Amino acid sequence: MDNDSSPRISHRPPFVITVGRQFGSGGRELGKALADALGIAYYDKELLVESAKLAGVNPEFFQKKDERFPTFLQGLFSFSMGVTPMCYYTGASSISDDGLYKSISDFLRSVAQEKSFVVVGRSSDYILRDHPRCVNIFVHAPMADCVRRIMGRNDALAADKAEAMARKTNKWRADYYNFFTDKTWGDAKSYDLTLDSSRLQMKDNVELVKAYLRLRGFID
Amino acid sequence: MDNDSSPRISHRPPFVITVGRQFGSGGRELGKALADALGIAYYDKELLVESAKLAGVNPEFFQKKDERFPTFLQGLFSFSMGVTPMCYYTGASSISDDGLYKSISDFLRSVAQEKSFVVVGRSSDYILRDHPRCVNIFVHAPMADCVRRIMGRNDALAADKAEAMARKTNKWRADYYNFFTDKTWGDAKSYDLTLDSSRLQMKDNVELVKAYLRLRGFID
Repeated sequence: MDNDSSPRISHRPPFVITVGRQFGSGGRELGKALADALGIAYYDKELLVESAKLAGVNPEFFQKKDERFPTFLQGLFSFSMGVTPMCYYTGASSISDDGLYKSISDFLRSVAQEKSFVVVGRSSDYILRDHPRCVNIFVHAPMADCVRRIMGRNDALAADKAEAMARKTNKWRADYYNFFTDKTWGDAKSYDLTLDSSRLQMKDNVELVKAYLRLRGFID
Repeated sequence: MDNDSSPRISHRPPFVITVGRQFGSGGRELGKALADALGIAYYDKELLVESAKLAGVNPEFFQKKDERFPTFLQGLFSFSMGVTPMCYYTGASSISDDGLYKSISDFLRSVAQEKSFVVVGRSSDYILRDHPRCVNIFVHAPMADCVRRIMGRNDALAADKAEAMARKTNKWRADYYNFFTDKTWGDAKSYDLTLDSSRLQMKDNVELVKAYLRLRGFID
């Protein structure tokens, strides 16, 4: 596991931080800031691109698919229920929903043997459940704070639309997580650590997670 | 619990830590250790004793009542549904379930104006929801760890009985919390911070919460 020559934090074995999050809670921002502060890799959309390469499928296809998540999930359910699997055609390559999940899983498990990273979303805590040095975090915030953050990303968006978008996205995330795992999205006991990101500045949320990693013995 | 001349941490205004917890997760142990480490008061069963004094009821009655929680809750539901309230008679004094909840609330709110403390259970996070310096924590652990801790308290208890006791008590706690609050017991978003106590030694769980309090500006 730790016999390659890639640089490590204090030469300790690699660890993974998985971040689940409510839409607009700043979980992605926290994940990125953590990866920067720790000098380790960060995966989010990029995870899909890497998975695509492994699966031999056009990366653009995965990104589009990720945007159309409800269709993806619907396809996945029908596949799992024994109905004809929905397949997506992208010119030369095609892949079923089940294939997409498998390629994400394979990619995450393979990279986790080599290096430390932060990964946001996609039930990665469950995919890496047998990893001995994996920290699972969930980030949430009051709806008003989430709405403010969502509107900050898109000036044209009204508050009621931002809230509707948050509720819908959280529902998709919960459906995805609860389907793929034996745990419940957003339930404290599904995670090692959960936090209300609105209680601290983002830099202090990073400090809190770093304090936790220190106590777990993953960083100095 | 202790008098008004008790020292405050760095003369900062008082704060409150509320601890919700799965049965056997070590939440009470963490709460006590935190109070010790911070040199502040701790309320658990004692909360009821103090409430009893305020309500002018024999303290022993409250402790017994706390042990017979399901009856208490049942009484409370019937009261709230407009059925004749169940009252408990203890010689000279009697009190309804509603009265018990009110006396706990009055006591907590009054003490929170005067000093810092840790309080475990009894939906105290909701009772103190308007307190400007209140940190709400939830502690959980995998069932195997909870069973181990419960058996450690009672050598004669078999593992299956300990697990049944944990599930039943968690159900009561959730029913109580979900009834008295507008939040969901054990759901990450009901709390500022939740943690799986089994991931760290108890002293390090204390350190994590202290790190959090420092970042919130409540202690030095």
